[in-house]
Amino acid sequence: MVMFTIQKQKPGKGLAAVDAPKPSLPVGWARLKVTHAGVCGTDLHIYKWDAWAEGRIKPPLVAGHEFVGELIELHPSVDASRYKLGARYSAECHTTCGVCVPCRTGNAHVCAETKILGVDINGAFAEEVVVPATNLWPIPAEIPSAHAAIFDPLGNAMHTCMTVSLSGKKVLITGAGPIGLMCVAMAKSLGAVSVTVTEVNPGRLAKAVEMGADFALQPQDLKVKDFDVVLELSGHPAALRQGLEVLKPTGDMVLLGIPAGEVALPLAEQVIFKGLKLHGVVGRRMYDTWYQVENFVRQNPQAVNKIISHTFPAAQFQQAFDLLEAGNANKIVLEF
Amino acid sequence: MVMFTIQKQKPGKGLAAVDAPKPSLPVGWARLKVTHAGVCGTDLHIYKWDAWAEGRIKPPLVAGHEFVGELIELHPSVDASRYKLGARYSAECHTTCGVCVPCRTGNAHVCAETKILGVDINGAFAEEVVVPATNLWPIPAEIPSAHAAIFDPLGNAMHTCMTVSLSGKKVLITGAGPIGLMCVAMAKSLGAVSVTVTEVNPGRLAKAVEMGADFALQPQDLKVKDFDVVLELSGHPAALRQGLEVLKPTGDMVLLGIPAGEVALPLAEQVIFKGLKLHGVVGRRMYDTWYQVENFVRQNPQAVNKIISHTFPAAQFQQAFDLLEAGNANKIVLEF
Amino acid sequence: MVMFTIQKQKPGKGLAAVDAPKPSLPVGWARLKVTHAGVCGTDLHIYKWDAWAEGRIKPPLVAGHEFVGELIELHPSVDASRYKLGARYSAECHTTCGVCVPCRTGNAHVCAETKILGVDINGAFAEEVVVPATNLWPIPAEIPSAHAAIFDPLGNAMHTCMTVSLSGKKVLITGAGPIGLMCVAMAKSLGAVSVTVTEVNPGRLAKAVEMGADFALQPQDLKVKDFDVVLELSGHPAALRQGLEVLKPTGDMVLLGIPAGEVALPLAEQVIFKGLKLHGVVGRRMYDTWYQVENFVRQNPQAVNKIISHTFPAAQFQQAFDLLEAGNANKIVLEF
Amino acid sequence: MVMFTIQKQKPGKGLAAVDAPKPSLPVGWARLKVTHAGVCGTDLHIYKWDAWAEGRIKPPLVAGHEFVGELIELHPSVDASRYKLGARYSAECHTTCGVCVPCRTGNAHVCAETKILGVDINGAFAEEVVVPATNLWPIPAEIPSAHAAIFDPLGNAMHTCMTVSLSGKKVLITGAGPIGLMCVAMAKSLGAVSVTVTEVNPGRLAKAVEMGADFALQPQDLKVKDFDVVLELSGHPAALRQGLEVLKPTGDMVLLGIPAGEVALPLAEQVIFKGLKLHGVVGRRMYDTWYQVENFVRQNPQAVNKIISHTFPAAQFQQAFDLLEAGNANKIVLEF
Repeated sequence: MVMFTIQKQKPGKGLAAVDAPKPSLPVGWARLKVTHAGVCGTDLHIYKWDAWAEGRIKPPLVAGHEFVGELIELHPSVDASRYKLGARYSAECHTTCGVCVPCRTGNAHVCAETKILGVDINGAFAEEVVVPATNLWPIPAEIPSAHAAIFDPLGNAMHTCMTVSLSGKKVLITGAGPIGLMCVAMAKSLGAVSVTVTEVNPGRLAKAVEMGADFALQPQDLKVKDFDVVLELSGHPAALRQGLEVLKPTGDMVLLGIPAGEVALPLAEQVIFKGLKLHGVVGRRMYDTWYQVENFVRQNPQAVNKIISHTFPAAQFQQAFDLLEAGNANKIVLEF
Repeated sequence: MVMFTIQKQKPGKGLAAVDAPKPSLPVGWARLKVTHAGVCGTDLHIYKWDAWAEGRIKPPLVAGHEFVGELIELHPSVDASRYKLGARYSAECHTTCGVCVPCRTGNAHVCAETKILGVDINGAFAEEVVVPATNLWPIPAEIPSAHAAIFDPLGNAMHTCMTVSLSGKKVLITGAGPIGLMCVAMAKSLGAVSVTVTEVNPGRLAKAVEMGADFALQPQDLKVKDFDVVLELSGHPAALRQGLEVLKPTGDMVLLGIPAGEVALPLAEQVIFKGLKLHGVVGRRMYDTWYQVENFVRQNPQAVNKIISHTFPAAQFQQAFDLLEAGNANKIVLEF
Repeated sequence: MVMFTIQKQKPGKGLAAVDAPKPSLPVGWARLKVTHAGVCGTDLHIYKWDAWAEGRIKPPLVAGHEFVGELIELHPSVDASRYKLGARYSAECHTTCGVCVPCRTGNAHVCAETKILGVDINGAFAEEVVVPATNLWPIPAEIPSAHAAIFDPLGNAMHTCMTVSLSGKKVLITGAGPIGLMCVAMAKSLGAVSVTVTEVNPGRLAKAVEMGADFALQPQDLKVKDFDVVLELSGHPAALRQGLEVLKPTGDMVLLGIPAGEVALPLAEQVIFKGLKLHGVVGRRMYDTWYQVENFVRQNPQAVNKIISHTFPAAQFQQAFDLLEAGNANKIVLEF
Repeated sequence: MVMFTIQKQKPGKGLAAVDAPKPSLPVGWARLKVTHAGVCGTDLHIYKWDAWAEGRIKPPLVAGHEFVGELIELHPSVDASRYKLGARYSAECHTTCGVCVPCRTGNAHVCAETKILGVDINGAFAEEVVVPATNLWPIPAEIPSAHAAIFDPLGNAMHTCMTVSLSGKKVLITGAGPIGLMCVAMAKSLGAVSVTVTEVNPGRLAKAVEMGADFALQPQDLKVKDFDVVLELSGHPAALRQGLEVLKPTGDMVLLGIPAGEVALPLAEQVIFKGLKLHGVVGRRMYDTWYQVENFVRQNPQAVNKIISHTFPAAQFQQAFDLLEAGNANKIVLEF
């Protein structure tokens, strides 16, 4: 009844391997044996114990929210005919109330009662994890488990790319972290006429080209100003401002990157007089985005492979966080 | 060949009555005998000679861009069968290039070569004005000329109201100047479930109620936070920020009010995590907005009457500017 | 443990008052004591035992699917903190699978596994009815129970009216049965510029005017051809064809009325060359439509009152069906 | 002052080489020396003198409406600074009124006064052609003239493909004539997840695969029913009905193929109960579609090459029509 977990045990830097009791199974929930879990930037925030983590995380907490596993138990209240014990499932990590206006109108991703696995409740860096059965996502046989483990961040990228149509559009992506790189491949596959990436890290610029970017350059080298859409993934005020400046009139900026504080924007000149639109994006649409991710992963396995820079046994999680902290990794998958 | 005009003759405060030569008629343009012209906030900026006016206006310049008049001449290059000499026409005051991407894709209102009557080229505070024939808008018999004279600002309001659907929505309007008041009546007629107005000026709050607002209150008295749409017409940073805070997740903010400088916004908490959308609005859609205004004016003549606080003979324009400068008028129409 | 019900006991015309066992309560479902139920055209089909009913209905079956009642029991698997025993609830009558693509992407109203109360499973013409707890709709105190009982058909009408924006549009409604009449009031409240109704029954035409129609006339008397939107509620081929003919180019036809068989349409001349759009509508969006209905009912109680022509004790249901069969009633509500 | 033309001289089959006077240049129009012209299905209808041609065409008439040429003269009323004499231009073949509701609201492609080159007025199968200057489309240097000559039909295909977003969608194309084949390449480039083509002609099926179709099969061999979008390009009733049947609920059918007569459709089962949308498409959006075509041609020259099966000197036009009549050609370009 005890299992291996990777936990934030107490305030302060680091995560620890801890043997902990297996979770109980609430009404309507499902239990999975975790086989693979992705390490997210959020996990790194928790590991470092930065200001955000200190304000949000209540130790002890099992980290991790991107994963795939084997379905091993359904609460008796769940209609077992709808699920398959022993099969692979990933899961949406947002648990939502189900009865508020957003939940009842296709916008559960902004439910005010959202509790996130590995952030607000125990997560997936563990031998077993429990989630609402309605959050399960079945994984088709042809999709490798390492890919299935990162449907969640692929979903953030896809939600960003599907917020406005990219078909036939000139797209600028500001920031080439893992989500930005995913967006490069997705924007191309969704029909963008061209994808340009700005990023200060030369290694990431090279990776952006590898992912299919038509142009990848330092922000100061960007000279053209005729983008139809900007996908803002850096959260940097300078990128936000430059993005507005290089958009055509009536263009769209999609915001997923999270600025550290408030951002001063030239609303009159760059937004109002140009008739621009700004779109805030959070989480994944439940579950439109998941279908879109599944299609993408099925058709672009090579792109997903390029995103995953390392795979480690879960017990070696410290190596993963060392690499991520040093900026020497892209997406890392842990094997449980 | 000389006509009465109201001009900015030289840098500095004020406007002057000046006899000036009648304008020549360019290829493709039309000449109108002005009968009524509205006084806009822009005219007040020019009158006061504020920083914006000093940067943009090149005296001498005939002011005025909201008007109605009698069509008295068409350049021979214009297909005369499409127009009716002697009939009343208002006109879009944005003259555009016709060949750029926005002009050729239904977005002429953001043409980079736009020249505005009464701002960049001589305007309508004159016995005669010339405009491109394609900018003419025929006025149906049942619409009074005083109403026809202000199709332009009604168009700004309508463009704002039509940027997102207000049908069945809870709408907040921040700022109850003339455009904001027009938006109150329009939002109601377009099917808003409720219209709330915030404004610091008590007289304008009372006027908002008269225009049909369900609630009209000082910004600090606003307690509810469940708006579907905010129409931002004040340009005040505090209103912008409050507007974001009181929007529901996935709500829309439409921006027409022009902030004086940059505005610091809590993008992470209020835009990204809530999945909001911001829409910059400028000018009038050419000419979708004009059809919508015509419908509104036809069906809501009482609302338009309430917007017009004063009418003066053109020669008494100084009184109009004195009232506007003192904040003692709403929309003023000059008769030529 | 026995309750009063109104059932189709066996094939053939008519419905019967039958004492039947109270229903058992499935996992995840809720039990309500029915207080009011609306009689729908579908109930009349079942009563008459027409071809559709013969093909779909498997007697014995408790009829009725529009209702409001008091929540009296929740299955233990339901989170009781989300609901309030003793309170009034209406309910969506479509029970859906929850795991198919439509169910997981905001389109549960087209779930292929839909089972409808009073059609496929026992319904609401009974002292008690059971429904999935997620289908419950809480009724605010200010809404009378007779109005709450007909949220379902009001939802069909609202879904039709919200399929395309009616704000500022010239709308034609073909057919003035109960749903068509509801659409008249809704289209007006949602901002339609004008609402015209065509209908062959003079009594219904008069009722359409009472509901707020700007014009109500026999189909052959319709002469204008400049409608932006047609809401087709008759299912008659002649209305469908006339609707296409009187739409402006690029206009929209929304189809809710159900044709008895195939309909021959002049697709080339009327749809393709005019660039029209046709929108099939079924059921209610779950649950966007319900919020919209609640708003409408709250703000337009007089309109809802006009829709309800009769109220009877449930035991006198035969009178209701006699009136409906004779075309002498609009919406009838039964009191249980 | 006399030029070579290909004309329908009188009722009956065939077209004739005729020396005819050069056209005069109306106010606002431009004159081009034609260098290349595409042969359209419409030209074949005119050649064959079928029922449609007999009803619409008034001989004598110069045929042809897809072309590219050198700009050789502008009417003095045209602003010459906006155009470049000696440069290559294609042109929209719909001449429209400019003042009706569709023309003033971005829908000029459905202007009721449309006159089509080569159909209603003399066309482009001639040494010289005149068109409104606003209809001119400048051709970038990197686009070959043979490609520029067929921007018009590429535009029909693009308009069809851009009517609903194909990004991430499973698309069925019914009919693999020239427009259908163009749609295959476009749908792929616009981000369709998969493109399936149905067609009875085996040669065209092979061509569809060459254009990038994922699946190409006889209609009776189509077994899956999970398409998100159908692009209907055949005009055949059987294809229309099959298209409806294989669409997922809430899917979209885009109609460009022109049925010969009325078509009986199962509206209840296939459109209403499934919540489908049908979209009629005609012409090209003026000029959104042209920008999209230019992007496509620039990025997919090989796809455009595959569409053009033959090129002939204009004098050998009879060979072109013989091949087309026998079904032995795809797109043919004539060189003038």
